[in-house]
Amino acid sequence: MKYDFTYYNPTRVHFGKDALDKLEGELNRYGKGVLLLYGKGSIKKIGLYDRVREILSRAKKNVTELSGIKPNPSYSQVLEGARLVRENNIDLILAVGGGSVIDCAKAISASAFCESDPWQKYWVDFRPLDNEVVPIGAVLTMAGTGSEMNGGSVITNESTMIKEGRVFSAELYPAFSILNPEFTYSVPKMQMVSGIFDVMSHLCEQYFSGDDENTSDYLIEAVMKLLILSARAAINNPLDYEARSNIMWCATVALNNLVGLSKTQDWQVHGIEHQLGAYTDCPHGLGLAVISIPYYRYIYKYGLKKFVRFATNVWGASATGKTDEQIALEGIKALESFSDELGIPKSLRELGAKEEMLPKIAYSVEEGGGYKKLSHEEMLNILKACY
Amino acid sequence: MKYDFTYYNPTRVHFGKDALDKLEGELNRYGKGVLLLYGKGSIKKIGLYDRVREILSRAKKNVTELSGIKPNPSYSQVLEGARLVRENNIDLILAVGGGSVIDCAKAISASAFCESDPWQKYWVDFRPLDNEVVPIGAVLTMAGTGSEMNGGSVITNESTMIKEGRVFSAELYPAFSILNPEFTYSVPKMQMVSGIFDVMSHLCEQYFSGDDENTSDYLIEAVMKLLILSARAAINNPLDYEARSNIMWCATVALNNLVGLSKTQDWQVHGIEHQLGAYTDCPHGLGLAVISIPYYRYIYKYGLKKFVRFATNVWGASATGKTDEQIALEGIKALESFSDELGIPKSLRELGAKEEMLPKIAYSVEEGGGYKKLSHEEMLNILKACY
Repeated sequence: MKYDFTYYNPTRVHFGKDALDKLEGELNRYGKGVLLLYGKGSIKKIGLYDRVREILSRAKKNVTELSGIKPNPSYSQVLEGARLVRENNIDLILAVGGGSVIDCAKAISASAFCESDPWQKYWVDFRPLDNEVVPIGAVLTMAGTGSEMNGGSVITNESTMIKEGRVFSAELYPAFSILNPEFTYSVPKMQMVSGIFDVMSHLCEQYFSGDDENTSDYLIEAVMKLLILSARAAINNPLDYEARSNIMWCATVALNNLVGLSKTQDWQVHGIEHQLGAYTDCPHGLGLAVISIPYYRYIYKYGLKKFVRFATNVWGASATGKTDEQIALEGIKALESFSDELGIPKSLRELGAKEEMLPKIAYSVEEGGGYKKLSHEEMLNILKACY
Repeated sequence: MKYDFTYYNPTRVHFGKDALDKLEGELNRYGKGVLLLYGKGSIKKIGLYDRVREILSRAKKNVTELSGIKPNPSYSQVLEGARLVRENNIDLILAVGGGSVIDCAKAISASAFCESDPWQKYWVDFRPLDNEVVPIGAVLTMAGTGSEMNGGSVITNESTMIKEGRVFSAELYPAFSILNPEFTYSVPKMQMVSGIFDVMSHLCEQYFSGDDENTSDYLIEAVMKLLILSARAAINNPLDYEARSNIMWCATVALNNLVGLSKTQDWQVHGIEHQLGAYTDCPHGLGLAVISIPYYRYIYKYGLKKFVRFATNVWGASATGKTDEQIALEGIKALESFSDELGIPKSLRELGAKEEMLPKIAYSVEEGGGYKKLSHEEMLNILKACY
């Protein structure tokens, strides 16, 4: 563990088939005012909305609602939520939905009592959180982002066409998160698959850096292996509780900070995808999958040893009679085949991108990377390679 | 993830070469009264005592000391500490040392304001914590027990010859823990090795249960593999920072609850060893190593599939041309060889046990286990097999 770190994650996670039974006890820790945040109504279809409202009633809460949170939550929704918090004596923001809803809850909490422009302060200048916030609770219905146990909040500013993620400190981690794998059953297959590749990408972005023996790398490989296995089982049978519960917990563990400790990390694929998302509104995980393959094919030579390890330890590639280059490429090929198995499109075109968007996307992403720092030109080439 | 669970671990861990720089900031969160708890003076030899006292002075704390905490901390020391807490307006117990000192700090904290007999309430009747407690901070000097990020507190009652562990709720987890791998350099080799096997045993006791695909099992295998690699490197060169830092972090991750989630777990080897420790005062990890080998040779048939997986995934045993029994036994043999590599004695006799102790030990352990529930008679047979 080459680099010093601080690890602190105070989210209380209730996991399993009866996890929702814990909601009332959690609600009792807070005052009367609840802002209930959710998306476009899929929680109504699965009956979760009614169950949550019933528990809120039993707990005698005054509920204000904000619904219609988008898959790429918008800054205007954040401002609307912030206004509702200020006007309704909100003591808790309860996010019911996927990672977008939880991301939006964090942004609302950070913005409600921010005295300057929240977008500028938190998503442009990346200032530390220093204003009053409202605690957040989550009931998760989709596995992927890991937002249920971290401070990440990705917001799209429609006026500037920038989709930007930032990581808040622990005051904005959900105080509690309720994870029932059965709530993810109704997610459409392409959304499930998008979530799965999002998790894979979180793992890759943390993994592909450094050359030391690091506990985190071993943990990442473990999560990757089970994720792959569980994804195959879930594709085969979406009602496989073992598979769906492992995917859900892998998603949380993949981004609750633990497996990135003492790693420099990469995150360039996420940076590029966020801008793709701002332009196309495509599902995040699908964008990640399409970009990842040419990205890793371009950078692997700069971190060859790690890509060999990836091929060997995660995909079981045999080293016999092969050069390191060949083994490394076999690992990336296996990742590509995994994306195919999941039925993920292979091009940005299929995700709704137009050719003229590519330079706009490439030049709006900050230059960065892991084993290789990428220029805007190099990012553009990667986008062209998967267009 | 077959069984529902709640995961909540609010310890703030500062890890690395400069981790002690975080102590003053942590101290500033608490009032003036500090009970400084440490062992038999090894922290003075390495200069850590002076550094900690200087930081306590800078933070303007009123310090009360309790030193001489034993490797198997005794209940009489707990009562002494509890008295000091009550008499000195203690706001924080600062444990500087190995897991025993931290275990003792938790016991003191639980006992200070307990209105009935603490031993009976917490270590015999296992009642939930319901009295006022004092927060705990830790500066760790030995890797092994994981006490720096959990609620475990193993105490020996000298009057009844019972060594009993209990797991307290999160109020008694250290609020902060400072982990500098360099502080573990001065630990004598046999103590280092004892710590390493303690970690291995924590992992085994959580691993050997269940037959589902469980995220926890994958995480455990990852930690086991790196622990084995790092142990070998540390034996070869105790000043290898990479190895010692991985051992330290593996120890924490092995017992901060994460890798046991949704597992029924076993803990019978720990149960037997605790009684061995009460009688012989032998280093905990060495006792675990000696008992583990005949224990697993006895129970493996009842969890054959998992022992095959252990041999294959952790030790790289090849399956070709072998029966499951053979593969499983190869894994246990590899564990035994690992214990040999570490230079751990092979018999209870070498750890100071006398033959007449064996029935006393066997009959004072609660009957239990994982794949196989053990009777007292069976435990006695296991003790005889490694005497």
